[in-house]
Amino acid sequence: MLVNSQNYRTVWMQDSSVCMINQQLLPHKFEIYKSKNHVDTANAIKTMIVRGAPAIGATGAFGIAQAALEFKGNNFEDFKNNIEIASNILKSTRPTANDLFYAIDFVKGKILKNFNVENARKDAVKSASEYADWNAELCRQIGEHGNKLIKNSQNILTHCNAGALACVDFGTALSPIRIAHYNKKNIFVYVDETRPRNQGASLTAWELAQEKISHAIIADNAAGHFMRKGKIDFAIVGADRIAMNGDVANKIGTYEKAVLARENSIPFYVAAPLSTFDIKCGSGDEIPIEERSEDELLYIHGIDEDKKIKKIRIAPIESSAKNPAFDVTPAKYITGIITEKGVIKPTREHIEIFMKNSN
Amino acid sequence: MLVNSQNYRTVWMQDSSVCMINQQLLPHKFEIYKSKNHVDTANAIKTMIVRGAPAIGATGAFGIAQAALEFKGNNFEDFKNNIEIASNILKSTRPTANDLFYAIDFVKGKILKNFNVENARKDAVKSASEYADWNAELCRQIGEHGNKLIKNSQNILTHCNAGALACVDFGTALSPIRIAHYNKKNIFVYVDETRPRNQGASLTAWELAQEKISHAIIADNAAGHFMRKGKIDFAIVGADRIAMNGDVANKIGTYEKAVLARENSIPFYVAAPLSTFDIKCGSGDEIPIEERSEDELLYIHGIDEDKKIKKIRIAPIESSAKNPAFDVTPAKYITGIITEKGVIKPTREHIEIFMKNSN
Repeated sequence: MLVNSQNYRTVWMQDSSVCMINQQLLPHKFEIYKSKNHVDTANAIKTMIVRGAPAIGATGAFGIAQAALEFKGNNFEDFKNNIEIASNILKSTRPTANDLFYAIDFVKGKILKNFNVENARKDAVKSASEYADWNAELCRQIGEHGNKLIKNSQNILTHCNAGALACVDFGTALSPIRIAHYNKKNIFVYVDETRPRNQGASLTAWELAQEKISHAIIADNAAGHFMRKGKIDFAIVGADRIAMNGDVANKIGTYEKAVLARENSIPFYVAAPLSTFDIKCGSGDEIPIEERSEDELLYIHGIDEDKKIKKIRIAPIESSAKNPAFDVTPAKYITGIITEKGVIKPTREHIEIFMKNSN
Repeated sequence: MLVNSQNYRTVWMQDSSVCMINQQLLPHKFEIYKSKNHVDTANAIKTMIVRGAPAIGATGAFGIAQAALEFKGNNFEDFKNNIEIASNILKSTRPTANDLFYAIDFVKGKILKNFNVENARKDAVKSASEYADWNAELCRQIGEHGNKLIKNSQNILTHCNAGALACVDFGTALSPIRIAHYNKKNIFVYVDETRPRNQGASLTAWELAQEKISHAIIADNAAGHFMRKGKIDFAIVGADRIAMNGDVANKIGTYEKAVLARENSIPFYVAAPLSTFDIKCGSGDEIPIEERSEDELLYIHGIDEDKKIKKIRIAPIESSAKNPAFDVTPAKYITGIITEKGVIKPTREHIEIFMKNSN
């Protein structure tokens, strides 16, 4: 992704440090956070310096590589124990992101099969980088497939941040938008603010601004109005989990936009890697919805006139809030699911055939 | 309405001062703003110390009363000229609120028909209070009619602030909720935050907290989710203008909630006095939609840890926003319109018959 006209990834390794774009400070400040050891890296995941399931996964992978480099000695059993402890520390940071466990186990598997400390240490950074590269390539492929669905001069709605910042590069929902822009399609993006955490207004708008893709932030309340007025031609969002019947769990508000898109005959696409499908999950009703802190609604962060980041209360002291972080969009509202292997129709039959053929 | 367990109105007159709840400071601070003269009162309308069409109307009426009291002399022509100048000052504060013009002309008509300064001055406060009382009574009647539609133990969704603060007392959409609560119905209110100006989270939540009506603030994004989960039984909103075919212009986001309510078979009511119907407006498509400042989305107000009110930027410096303040909800999504004379089905035929019979 472009930042100040230079190419960046969300997370990468430099010598024994894990470097990451500090997402706590965006969009107000662009800063690289350098984590010197795997405990610090675990902490960066926990405090959301890095967020987004694929980005967290890659960060965890690099954390394991760090743990391998940190080990002093030659005893393979001690090395293995140390890697196991580091793995537990890294895995305990964010309990719901499946990519984190997958990425850590991927790197662990690669390095421990050496049965030799020196070779394992040599393989560590290579394996973690392989994971990160693979993730970036996956997102690029989603972008190529999605780009074919976007026509010149279209107005596109997106919700939340399923961008490069949530992944290693390209993003999921933002990848087709990026690739369409690189292909000189003249597009305009309506960016849902995405209350309560404002990932649209802060992260998606920031990514689009950096790439010089025309866009405007809108209140989540305004998306329906713009659809009804014929101002939106295409809607695309990411996914946190997809059930085998095509129901999609994603950021709160996705369901609203999907219903409104269907009501206004606007195609509504979900962009996600095949790993987002949960083969143990038959339908969206089985997906538990995380209730997050009320404070996300009652307080807000921003910068004041002195460029200081401030947290302020925006609701009455006596009032409480309810804050479901995700919702489930039934498959019937979804036009298609854009994966790295192509576009799937959101029906149980199509998903099963597609998964079988792409193995 | 109750504030700190005492009865208040949004605006009233005390000697020659117009007193109003300072809505600029809510929900963070409850303070009465006392305007000493009609120019100051005009300014209070302009700077939104008072807001909401009916509340602005009553404030304008009291402003004319102030102008009458301020006049020193006995010449009726001079008096009339002064009232005319005051009327122009007060009318020029907020150009779109029809109630303001109506209220000012109502008081002017009453006092100028005296053709005598002393009698006119005697009539001034009485006429303005009559207007305010009439408005409060109208809202109470909306509440009585709406209350009949609310069952015990229902969960009710509301959007924006169509409360007592927007009127003189009771409110429109909040009036049935108040009356149901006074009638000991055990209700729970889901309060849409209502971005970008947050009138739900700041004003509606504050009114409900003051009345001790159980409620929770939700992100506008979450209303659909709660509907789908069967958590909402009834939705009610106010209206800025209603076309003769039943299409309703109201705060941005109303259209989204109405579509979602129909999709989930939840009754969706609009509460508004008959004066909200625009007999010159055949359908919602004729209603112009006000575009407000981008800053409403890009910045936000709240209080910091020192209880100071702060304005902070929440979006990237490079990004712009689009900010339509209202949307139009087509009649087909609306279950009924609750007026002071009863509930109307939102079809041209019913509206015409109802308007004829209630004259």
